[in-house]
Amino acid sequence: MLPDVAVEDLRFDVRGLLPAVVQQHDTGEVLMVAWMDAESLQRTRELGETVFYSRSRDELWHKGATSGNTQRVVDLRVDCDADTVLVLVDQGGDGVACHTGERSCFHRRLPLRRSAPS
Amino acid sequence: MLPDVAVEDLRFDVRGLLPAVVQQHDTGEVLMVAWMDAESLQRTRELGETVFYSRSRDELWHKGATSGNTQRVVDLRVDCDADTVLVLVDQGGDGVACHTGERSCFHRRLPLRRSAPS
Repeated sequence: MLPDVAVEDLRFDVRGLLPAVVQQHDTGEVLMVAWMDAESLQRTRELGETVFYSRSRDELWHKGATSGNTQRVVDLRVDCDADTVLVLVDQGGDGVACHTGERSCFHRRLPLRRSAPS
Repeated sequence: MLPDVAVEDLRFDVRGLLPAVVQQHDTGEVLMVAWMDAESLQRTRELGETVFYSRSRDELWHKGATSGNTQRVVDLRVDCDADTVLVLVDQGGDGVACHTGERSCFHRRLPLRRSAPS
């Protein structure tokens, strides 16, 4: 049984935002990372679906409202610093989280680079 | 086979940082979220262990250098916007990522709140 955190204890950044990591609850896939302000977090909790804050459009964004790829919220976790949330979801619609049509936004690799032998 | 991203294509924020989500590669546990600048990312890739940028101390931070709880990097993923990295690791040491002694920094819950019936 995990201890609860109150929303008042969350530490939003200077812009009033915190990063939200979205993870498929049963497979563990990290689907995307987006941002939430206090209002989008409140709407996420009330609606039971993810609502984010779009930094580029400066507005709330109900994920999947147009595409149908909504994310049903199964659980919300808060980290030790209370400045990041982990949103456990069931990815709905076509099962696609990324606007590119990929399951996860993290569908590209950055190669590891080893130091050249001296 | 995932396509590669070049480090030059990453989009660091105005502070020169990007969020790094750290996930245990085999179990899918999200262990923590920290920040990387270009130098900590380069050191992470070369060392094969996570190196972060500490915003509070304004310095690089080799995770586990003092505690022994280093994180061996298995893979690095980049999201569609190229402004967030997902670091797949094998959590070493005592298997503990959080400074509180918990396995994951996300060990607390934020309860969902349903609207009161009207």
